[in-house]
Order: sequence, then C-alpha cells, then structure tokens
Amino acid sequence: MEPAQDIWKDVERIRAAAPLVHNITNYVVMNTTANALLAIGASPVMAHAIEEVEEMAGLASALVINIGTLSAPWVESMLRAAAAARKKGIPIVLDPVGAGATRLRTETAHKILETARPAVLRGNASEIRALHSAERGTRGVDSRHEAEAALEAGWALSRLFECAVSISGPVDIIIGAGSVIRVSNGHPLMARVTGLGCTASALTGAFAAVNPSTLRAAANAMAVMGIAGEMAAELACGPGSLQMHFLDALHRLGENDIGGRLKIDIS
Amino acid sequence: MEPAQDIWKDVERIRAAAPLVHNITNYVVMNTTANALLAIGASPVMAHAIEEVEEMAGLASALVINIGTLSAPWVESMLRAAAAARKKGIPIVLDPVGAGATRLRTETAHKILETARPAVLRGNASEIRALHSAERGTRGVDSRHEAEAALEAGWALSRLFECAVSISGPVDIIIGAGSVIRVSNGHPLMARVTGLGCTASALTGAFAAVNPSTLRAAANAMAVMGIAGEMAAELACGPGSLQMHFLDALHRLGENDIGGRLKIDIS
Amino acid sequence: MEPAQDIWKDVERIRAAAPLVHNITNYVVMNTTANALLAIGASPVMAHAIEEVEEMAGLASALVINIGTLSAPWVESMLRAAAAARKKGIPIVLDPVGAGATRLRTETAHKILETARPAVLRGNASEIRALHSAERGTRGVDSRHEAEAALEAGWALSRLFECAVSISGPVDIIIGAGSVIRVSNGHPLMARVTGLGCTASALTGAFAAVNPSTLRAAANAMAVMGIAGEMAAELACGPGSLQMHFLDALHRLGENDIGGRLKIDIS
Repeated sequence: MEPAQDIWKDVERIRAAAPLVHNITNYVVMNTTANALLAIGASPVMAHAIEEVEEMAGLASALVINIGTLSAPWVESMLRAAAAARKKGIPIVLDPVGAGATRLRTETAHKILETARPAVLRGNASEIRALHSAERGTRGVDSRHEAEAALEAGWALSRLFECAVSISGPVDIIIGAGSVIRVSNGHPLMARVTGLGCTASALTGAFAAVNPSTLRAAANAMAVMGIAGEMAAELACGPGSLQMHFLDALHRLGENDIGGRLKIDIS
Repeated sequence: MEPAQDIWKDVERIRAAAPLVHNITNYVVMNTTANALLAIGASPVMAHAIEEVEEMAGLASALVINIGTLSAPWVESMLRAAAAARKKGIPIVLDPVGAGATRLRTETAHKILETARPAVLRGNASEIRALHSAERGTRGVDSRHEAEAALEAGWALSRLFECAVSISGPVDIIIGAGSVIRVSNGHPLMARVTGLGCTASALTGAFAAVNPSTLRAAANAMAVMGIAGEMAAELACGPGSLQMHFLDALHRLGENDIGGRLKIDIS
Repeated sequence: MEPAQDIWKDVERIRAAAPLVHNITNYVVMNTTANALLAIGASPVMAHAIEEVEEMAGLASALVINIGTLSAPWVESMLRAAAAARKKGIPIVLDPVGAGATRLRTETAHKILETARPAVLRGNASEIRALHSAERGTRGVDSRHEAEAALEAGWALSRLFECAVSISGPVDIIIGAGSVIRVSNGHPLMARVTGLGCTASALTGAFAAVNPSTLRAAANAMAVMGIAGEMAAELACGPGSLQMHFLDALHRLGENDIGGRLKIDIS
C-alpha cells in the first residue's frame, strides 16, 4: 500500500476503534499526551499504581512507557505492566527520555528494553546513542544530534532487542525489519514545545494498536506528528499557539492533508 | 428561585468570595482544573502530603477528591483530608475516576464513599454503575454509557451514601433530595479534551462552597460547564482551541449567557 | 548598563546558550514552566528522583526548587540537588509556594533556606512574610498582600540568608546587595492563570544562569514576565488565551518590546 494510504487507513482505524492506550508516563506531559491521543481519536488512560497497572494493561490495546520523571516505585510498575502487555500480546512502546543524562535513566531504559521487549523504541538521537554506547553526560532531554547521527546505534539496538527504533529529528528515521524509513515532515518551532517527543511516543502506541506492521505504525505516527506540526505552524505565532493548533490539526487531519504534505522515503 | 438566577447568584458569590477549594486530584488534570477554578473566580490549592492535608482542608471552603492517578499513599491522605473537612463542616466532592476499570479504583472509591461521606459523588455513567453493581472491566476513564443508563444506580448510591449523585453525559443527571435535575447543555467536542470531567468535579466543589443546597450546587456546576463548553465550541477549531476558549468563557460568563442558553429540567 | 539593555542582553544570552535549568517543581506547573523556559530560549529538565538529582544538577546551569506539591521524599531530593548545585557553583532559586499555609511548607522552606542557601528567594508577599514572622494560616498559594507589605520581611530574609529576595505583586520588589528594584510591569489577568508565579521562579533560574548579578537577574526575570504578560493581555480574551499568548510573547520578545514597555525603579 502507498505510504499516504497506509497512514490514512491507520487514522481511520484509530478514529473508528478508539483503541485504549495505557500510558505510564512523566508528570510533565500527562495532560498534553492524553489530549493528543484524544485529538487523533484514541482513548488514553494514565495509571501507574503497582496495584492496578497489570489490570489496566489487560484492558488496553497498547502500552506506552516513558521514563521522563522517573522514580524507583514507578520502575516496578513499568515492568509489571509490560509483562501483562506481553501476555496479552499488545504492542509496547518505550520512550527512554533523558537516557544518557543520568545513570538512573540509562540503566532503567536498558532494564526495560531487556525485560519488557518493546515493539518500538522511540527517542531522540542523543538517547538512542546513549543506549547503544552507554555514553554519558548528554544534556538530558535536549538533543543536539541529528537523527542521522544515531543511525548505526539504531540499527544495533533494533537487531539486539528485535524492535523497531524510531529516532526523531528534523528528519525522523525509523528502523526495523531490514528497512529504513525517513520522514521529513515537521517544523522547527515544534522543538520549543515541551513534550512533543513524548507525544510522538504516545501516538506511536495508538498507531501500533491498529497497524500490524510495527515499522509502518512507528513511521506513520511520526508522519502524522510532522504533518500536524506543519499545519499548526502555519497558524501559530509562537510555541503557545503552536501547541493549541497542533491538537486541532490532529483532530481535523484529513486524507488530503496527508497526501499533500507527506515527505517519506522508504529504503 | 429560578434556576438561571440561582446559577448566576452562585457565580457572583464565587467571584466575590473566591472560596479556597482544596483538591487532591490526579496528575493529568492538576493544571487544567486549577485554571478552571481560577477562571470562574475561585481559589484552587493542590496539596496531597499526609503531613499537611488536614491543615490545608482546615483552611478550605470545599474539598475535592479525585482518584484519577491513584497510589497507596494518596488514599491515606484523601481519608485524612476528608475527616478534617467533615470536622470543619465543608462539602466534599468525590470523583471516582476509572471506577470499574480496576479493582484498586472501585475499592478505593467505595472506601472513600463509606468513610468520607462526600456531599456529592460526581462521575460518568460507567463509574456510577460500577460503584453500584461492582461490575468490572469498563474502559477506564472512557464512558460509553449515556447518563440515563446510570439513573437507577445513581438513585441507589444517593440513598445509600446520603449524597447527591451527579452523572455526566450528553444530558447530565443530578440526583438527590428526592429530585432529579437534567442539564442538556454542552458540546460533543468536550469529550475530546482530557479532564473536563475532573474540571466538572472541581467546579462542583466551588459551587458547593457557596450554595447551601448540595443538589442545586451540583446541578449549577454542570450547567456552567455545559454553557461555557457551548460558548467555547462556537469559537473552536478543534479540541486544542476548545480548551482555551473554555477557560476564557468561564472567566467572561455573564448573566445573559446563562439565561439565554440554560437547558435544565427539574423533576 | 541601562536596565533595558541589561535585560535584553540576558535574553540574548539565554537564546544563544540555552542554559539547562534543572527544576524540582510541583506537579501543577511542570508542563507550563517547561514551556516558558523553552519559549524564552532555555533548556528545561524536570527530575526529582533521589538517585539522579545530583547528577542532573551537575549538568545544569541553574537549579530551581519549588515546594508547591510537597511530599517527604522530595525534600531529601531537593536538599541533595542543592548540595550538588552549590558544589558546582550554579545559582539556586527557591520558590516557597504556600509557605505560611501549612507547617510542612513553612518548615520545609526554612530548611531549604538554611541548608541550600539559594541565590534567590522568590515568592509572593504572603509567603515572604510567613517565612519572616512564621505567621500562619495564610490562604495557601493565594496572596492578598501587596509586595510592599513584605518589604521589611524581605530585607530581613535577604540579610539573614544572604540572598536576593524577589517578591511578586502588582509591583514586584526585588531586594538584595543594598538595593531595592521595583518592577511595575504586568497585568491583573495574570493572577487568573495558575503557575505564573512558579514560571517567574523558573525564568529567574534562566536569568541567573547567564547574569552574574543575582539581583539584576532576579529583577530582569520579573520584568520579562511582566512585559510578556502585557503583550499577551493585549491579545487575550480571558485567562485561557492569556496563557497561550504569554508563551508566544516570551518567544517573540524583542529589544523594542523591552525598551518600550519597561517600568523599573532602582534605588
């Protein structure tokens, strides 16, 4: 199927099925990622208590784990939710926010990769490189690398953990199943809004819930992020209005928006 | 008093007295519910530490308990705050977010109902039904039922716990004191913004702080939610702009907005 | 240097260096303060886990501690992060949210003042007075005092803890190094948006990261807050749109906006 058609089909499926996406995510973005999932048509739920994460994952169609504001009790909840998700056979997305910045984050991301075996690892180039090389002292959630600089690391992690690796940047790179997909949509102002990387991970969960190809789901989510970001940037006067228009764009996204804007390269 | 007059009087009282509403609520909506309380004219405070919840409830004019992102230490804080609120004689509102989705949520909501004896139980139809019948496996925070489908459950809970029960849906139903009030204001796009149910509960706290009739306070809060939602929807291009215009509408809400839009039925 | 020039120079430095500001802050404002830091050009990171706060502070150019939704484990993290920040020689900003409302908050703020020795103490008049006189029972995060009413308390705290004291109000007062700076920018509608005080503290961190004069950094941050607030209020229809336009204004703030609007008095 043509990429634009495949993306649009996913959007239609999400809007029709409203898949429940269970998020164990950071405090900073809980509100905005829930709103993005609602805007695209999915049903978000945020739950982290150890007493309920297995039950909640058992109701869900995808599980998104994000380590952005980590603390010890949450790690156990993440691992338990992931075990329940694997048992149920639903896709898991891991966003290793800040891997490389501190040992806690790098080690936790590794532990989740090894134990939970996510379908998609979705981060920026700094994080992906840190997970590969265990390089330390990046600037936390702030990526200075282009996604291309993490290509080799992405391939290695994809092979090692048998997952798709989705690396965000001016050009997003999605790796897996012997293919590389590059998505060139998006707008520089998106980097001035907190949590759009986390939103990309949450949407990746929604797309993975409806598309049997993990690789295509991961790429389609990044394409929709970028296209909605472009639509928003055309109306925005700064990062505040960008964030608002971005949610509106996810909601009103139509087949022609995708067909007319998609910049994708599959190799 | 005519319903529209009663609502407007409450809004005027809130704006004049700026009642302090103590919220123990979920991470997802802390920011947006605080903003809604400020926009209508109340003073929000969010505090959950066991060391301070009793003191904070002692300063407040209403207490709102919301179990949306529950964990064990918070339950103890909720119960202590509720005891302090009862001692001071201020109204308590309980939002049993996700009751029915997991055992933790259903059981915690029951424990709070039994111990804290809230003045208002405010949830969606799934949650109210789950609390009545202990039915399990709903889709979490996502309600598929119309409020009408929870009417019987609402009556039973209202009698059992001697509280008003406020059930949100396309038509909101508020039950208590032998009466049923139906509010038909609102807009479908509101369901695409996270936390507007939680906002309804927070506003219910503000209205209960100024209106001695718990039933009317609960209904008036839902009417203001729906009316502000309609005003916002007329200006919105999607859920992002709806959320922004909703806060603006709460702030500029005037007597004529209520009189001209109110759709209420009291029986 | 002329005040307007000094402010503009700071803004240019922040945009050029994108200083990493490590925030240990409350749940209510994590998203909005991160967005404000991004909008002005800084790099925010939110991290509170005891296992990583020292490492994260070691990567940062400023540390902002905000006690708005306090709990016991966080206090230990705040103290550890502060020790690491002092060791590295980066400025620390303390926002004692709700000091005076509960004993936990007043005592925690005192402990941090004594142990962490912040460069800037930034609060509203109620909080500053409470920290000076240990007066109790204020209305939490809601200040009814003008900043002027806390002038004496501010001076005493500034001398006692050898820090700048920045008191927000219709006229902001910044005290330190034998000087008092008054900033009269801002708009009343800003008080109807949650977390703008916390945002002022976060921006104070960014300015302190680039300006060697703590006093000027603290004043410059308040001036930028007030000016961006005025720019936003001219476009806003209420608190919802104010918040959005405020972020846009921080992003597009130019030298002429500062020069044309600044109302500052240094004595």
